Amino acid sequence: MPGNSFGQLLRITTFGESHGPAIGVVIDGCPPRLKVNEQIIQQDLDKRKPGQSAITTSRQEDDRVEILSGMFEGKTLGTPIALLIRNKDARPEDYAHLKETYRPSHADFTYEAKYGIRDHRGGGRASARETAARVAAGAIAKVLLAKEKVHIATYVSRIGKVKVMSPYTELDLSGVYTNDLRCPDKASREKMMTLLTKARKEGDTLGGIITCVVRNCPAGWGEPVFDKLHADLAKAMMSINAAKGFEIGSGFAAAEMKGSEHNDQFGSTAQVTLTNNSGGIQGGISNGMDIWFRVAFKPVATLMQKQHSVDKHGKPVTLEGKGRHDPCVVPRAVPIVEAMAALVLADHYLRWKAGR
Amino acid sequence: MPGNSFGQLLRITTFGESHGPAIGVVIDGCPPRLKVNEQIIQQDLDKRKPGQSAITTSRQEDDRVEILSGMFEGKTLGTPIALLIRNKDARPEDYAHLKETYRPSHADFTYEAKYGIRDHRGGGRASARETAARVAAGAIAKVLLAKEKVHIATYVSRIGKVKVMSPYTELDLSGVYTNDLRCPDKASREKMMTLLTKARKEGDTLGGIITCVVRNCPAGWGEPVFDKLHADLAKAMMSINAAKGFEIGSGFAAAEMKGSEHNDQFGSTAQVTLTNNSGGIQGGISNGMDIWFRVAFKPVATLMQKQHSVDKHGKPVTLEGKGRHDPCVVPRAVPIVEAMAALVLADHYLRWKAGR
Amino acid sequence: MPGNSFGQLLRITTFGESHGPAIGVVIDGCPPRLKVNEQIIQQDLDKRKPGQSAITTSRQEDDRVEILSGMFEGKTLGTPIALLIRNKDARPEDYAHLKETYRPSHADFTYEAKYGIRDHRGGGRASARETAARVAAGAIAKVLLAKEKVHIATYVSRIGKVKVMSPYTELDLSGVYTNDLRCPDKASREKMMTLLTKARKEGDTLGGIITCVVRNCPAGWGEPVFDKLHADLAKAMMSINAAKGFEIGSGFAAAEMKGSEHNDQFGSTAQVTLTNNSGGIQGGISNGMDIWFRVAFKPVATLMQKQHSVDKHGKPVTLEGKGRHDPCVVPRAVPIVEAMAALVLADHYLRWKAGR
Amino acid sequence: MPGNSFGQLLRITTFGESHGPAIGVVIDGCPPRLKVNEQIIQQDLDKRKPGQSAITTSRQEDDRVEILSGMFEGKTLGTPIALLIRNKDARPEDYAHLKETYRPSHADFTYEAKYGIRDHRGGGRASARETAARVAAGAIAKVLLAKEKVHIATYVSRIGKVKVMSPYTELDLSGVYTNDLRCPDKASREKMMTLLTKARKEGDTLGGIITCVVRNCPAGWGEPVFDKLHADLAKAMMSINAAKGFEIGSGFAAAEMKGSEHNDQFGSTAQVTLTNNSGGIQGGISNGMDIWFRVAFKPVATLMQKQHSVDKHGKPVTLEGKGRHDPCVVPRAVPIVEAMAALVLADHYLRWKAGR
Repeated sequence: MPGNSFGQLLRITTFGESHGPAIGVVIDGCPPRLKVNEQIIQQDLDKRKPGQSAITTSRQEDDRVEILSGMFEGKTLGTPIALLIRNKDARPEDYAHLKETYRPSHADFTYEAKYGIRDHRGGGRASARETAARVAAGAIAKVLLAKEKVHIATYVSRIGKVKVMSPYTELDLSGVYTNDLRCPDKASREKMMTLLTKARKEGDTLGGIITCVVRNCPAGWGEPVFDKLHADLAKAMMSINAAKGFEIGSGFAAAEMKGSEHNDQFGSTAQVTLTNNSGGIQGGISNGMDIWFRVAFKPVATLMQKQHSVDKHGKPVTLEGKGRHDPCVVPRAVPIVEAMAALVLADHYLRWKAGR
Repeated sequence: MPGNSFGQLLRITTFGESHGPAIGVVIDGCPPRLKVNEQIIQQDLDKRKPGQSAITTSRQEDDRVEILSGMFEGKTLGTPIALLIRNKDARPEDYAHLKETYRPSHADFTYEAKYGIRDHRGGGRASARETAARVAAGAIAKVLLAKEKVHIATYVSRIGKVKVMSPYTELDLSGVYTNDLRCPDKASREKMMTLLTKARKEGDTLGGIITCVVRNCPAGWGEPVFDKLHADLAKAMMSINAAKGFEIGSGFAAAEMKGSEHNDQFGSTAQVTLTNNSGGIQGGISNGMDIWFRVAFKPVATLMQKQHSVDKHGKPVTLEGKGRHDPCVVPRAVPIVEAMAALVLADHYLRWKAGR
Repeated sequence: MPGNSFGQLLRITTFGESHGPAIGVVIDGCPPRLKVNEQIIQQDLDKRKPGQSAITTSRQEDDRVEILSGMFEGKTLGTPIALLIRNKDARPEDYAHLKETYRPSHADFTYEAKYGIRDHRGGGRASARETAARVAAGAIAKVLLAKEKVHIATYVSRIGKVKVMSPYTELDLSGVYTNDLRCPDKASREKMMTLLTKARKEGDTLGGIITCVVRNCPAGWGEPVFDKLHADLAKAMMSINAAKGFEIGSGFAAAEMKGSEHNDQFGSTAQVTLTNNSGGIQGGISNGMDIWFRVAFKPVATLMQKQHSVDKHGKPVTLEGKGRHDPCVVPRAVPIVEAMAALVLADHYLRWKAGR
Repeated sequence: MPGNSFGQLLRITTFGESHGPAIGVVIDGCPPRLKVNEQIIQQDLDKRKPGQSAITTSRQEDDRVEILSGMFEGKTLGTPIALLIRNKDARPEDYAHLKETYRPSHADFTYEAKYGIRDHRGGGRASARETAARVAAGAIAKVLLAKEKVHIATYVSRIGKVKVMSPYTELDLSGVYTNDLRCPDKASREKMMTLLTKARKEGDTLGGIITCVVRNCPAGWGEPVFDKLHADLAKAMMSINAAKGFEIGSGFAAAEMKGSEHNDQFGSTAQVTLTNNSGGIQGGISNGMDIWFRVAFKPVATLMQKQHSVDKHGKPVTLEGKGRHDPCVVPRAVPIVEAMAALVLADHYLRWKAGR
């Protein structure tokens, strides 16, 4: 099956290129009679949209969403919900110099290798602009999860060398979206901002880590074997542009631990464990504890520095940074991680209903 | 769709419980006229099978594979290939005490929560025994990849605190399966063995990391957006029992890097980059460089120590370690990682053929 | 998986309600570098669009298609192609009386039973308006098939009691779309028109049969067992509104034949058979002969007569025919049958490429 | 996706060639805690198995089924259920003359065209022997449906020129399996037997029609648009060997009817209609009335007569009828139609549960 759909029972299909007429998404399988409207979706899109602060791209996109189908009198019909976002502030001329040139650590060459054709304007389909469609779909998934009291909190836990040292359990995650860095820890935030300002001045970029916590997920969601809940989360997260790593619960640290340290002892019942190295999932199925995981992002590949590169004929080229780009994609990736988490969970919620 | 299948065009469906009559796999979509036989599959199964050394479970399973279909005169027919492995050295009585008890950091409770029933003998479907079916299927995927000259090398790069310090490019990966630890570095191997012997004596267990390298993958394999090649690899790896983390190329280290450090500069053509932080994939599509990634595994949850636990009625129970288990699952997971990598790549190879 | 997608490798997802803002389709898996444009799609849409003659609904819809994505400089990119058709001549007030009433032999009651909510305006998602999206997608599938020289001819072979007596092999199928009845046989056409005029006057409706012929399909397309080429065709056809039956080659007549009559003898090679009762497919796989099949359609359920009905509270209601409807859907279904046939064949063409 | 799987949430994958070691099926998605055992499955297999009477092939296959997985203490676990049937009375030597020869109206040539290789023994994968796996899986689907009180009755309604004249509503369908012809009408049965005896003597074969009735299906099952309940039934039926046509409710007769005749008027509520031309489905969704449909089968292609044919080099060959074959496949196809209907309905039952 082609690669632009995600999910089994709640299934989204996204479309659109960065500088084409529009991007959008069709959500199939959304249960009927959910109260959804454009405002709910717009709220989440606004968290992701560019042009919000000094540390994001200056591209101005309203990212106005239009609901094309699947709704009637304010409620979902159970039929496909199509969401449309027109591209407005496209400046294809910014990309004319890339028509025959491959940018380092971009998908220019690989798209050419796969398709023998590519839309070079702003990365075309490979642009992170596609993720706006995911955020829009995720907003609807979150409405569905909210009915089951499942809640997702997501935040920036590292940018470059600056890391939030407290575990998520000691942080107040309620106000994450009130600050541009999407980071709940004030001290870290200030250091991150210093780092980002410096990087921007140097025409350089930074990577980082996002932590995501799913609360109130009932025990029993997920599939054993291949469609383990955390395997689906891993795929969802690694499908986000610039993601380089995924770890759940103890993650890579588990490799250094002994079983006697790592095992999560039960409390008074099996619903509660005293530690949560498992990250809320055992054997691919939720155990009722918080599901928590982390996603690593590489620094943005487009630099405002001169870079050596090659064109499609193999001729050396010097690239000058052009276009409008974020020095660090991580804060804007927070609602994307959240949306993808919501889509995975909502899908497994429907699968759970079928399997009962 | 239920969760026991993997892959789109090369699609496997595994079945079987640890102490039921048999485990097995149906491979659908394998191209016709491949030379396959039971010996080729058995070779890979033998790399995974238990009872091989002091550091693996003493359960004796021949893991004899029988090809039930899809072959004619030594060649694949293009029809489904069913592979059957009978369970022989099952000792269900070892597990009688677990009928009503949940083991910490096992899937006992979550299966009960999901299904309201479970086969408590050896973990039932949640047992790593299921992965023998994956290894068998992977052997066939490797035959298919070999025709395209794609080759996969996999090894243990960490057990507990002992880490192989050299990058994979400086290691000789050809003889990995000649040593019990599946580690190409002699000095690390010795330290790992010391560590494992100590852990086993203490009734404890250890985690570790496996590194996997795919060589000669042509540029252009993979799908953009959701089915990115590394997203499918992430799902495949995280679906392996005890996996806690996945990272590709620079991985989590990317979070700490600047763009000017991280970008892979092109060499004389776009086919070659001077560094490989991308891990051989850009925008979800292979770029012709080595694909390399790492998978973190937690320590085995079954300890040969007394552990506190609860039964299904919430009553506290003291668990004594019983059954036959590995103190460290990582060396035996090497052929599993390799098999899953082969299945992902072979699937994307067929998808590439369709999309050309 | 939700039910609004069709196809495996060439996969379409349609969306939209009859009187909502728009209908549309996302086509995923279309190969790159195909020359496609809005004119090619519009041509096929125009064959289906309402308001063309005395025998079709007077609803005026331009059915103007807009390509939202997946194209660059006149060629397909290999990425999803989204097509949008705005609803214009919607008159929801025509349907106000149906808000609580179920029309006989319509999907009003069943949608209510399934979803607990429905868009009663013009049948909502159940309206045949959805098929415009299929026709648009089919136009692109036909471009793909044309490169392989595969050609599809489709025509009305029966309306009510009037049946085209000649087999398709004796008809000139090239000018089907030049007449409103989409019937290649002049004598039948005249009788059909008489019949339709009479039915319209009586406020009644008629059913009919469409014959479809696929020429130049190479031998070897199709999958054995479940995804037999004719099984996929059957599903495609039966998914069209008002379809009641499907038969391939000899079809229902085969039930009355002896094997010695029915078997298709080979000519000088296995590429050619002297008869074609098989309908061009053996064991689910094309044999190189014409693929030919027939689809039966019921008469339109909306009558311009008074009908007894019930409302959602079980109260008897008298329905008066309102809205704008075709007295016979069959001529307008010709491009829909053709589009669905093209989508099935193009999908199996890609599957064939993957499986070689 | 490869073509050997069927169903979305209750998904079966069959495997095996007619004269290979075994055939079988993996059923994924079966809900937990269903009481299933080998006897229940065997009962249905026995209805299909060869060698039962003068009018079926003399091949003796016990068709002994073994449950390999997915069961514990007499109940389903929710994990994949693998069922195995060994081939016993295989006589490959009967087919040696077919190694290079294509039989008319068989899949010999098309498999060769698709795969470039085939197992010529008994048709290999194209043999109707594959359907035993479907019957085994269907037995489990029927257990699931029985819990919802859904019941399926299936019978032979035509063989050659002999047709059961009464509608199904006037027949007693309870004892269908007590007679070899699977026909509930005594008078028709006698005529059918006369016809079959004559055909067998002449070395000829006959086609026929099977009628299937699903009772007590609640309103609301099915998906609109592509996965309409009757579209999935059509695909299921047309995927059975030798099927040439499918019609639901009024079927092809609808083409000759007026809307005023065809519309099913509601009774006192929308749950009951006075006629059932719709066949129990409106807009792809069940309406609570009986679902009834018919499947046409061609006469068996293997004749006990001399036939002209060609070999793979295009050389003319005279085929003599060999092997063991049924003069009419229709009575043995009754449990197959029933099994496929059960699989479609059980799948849509699970989809309905997810969508509520």
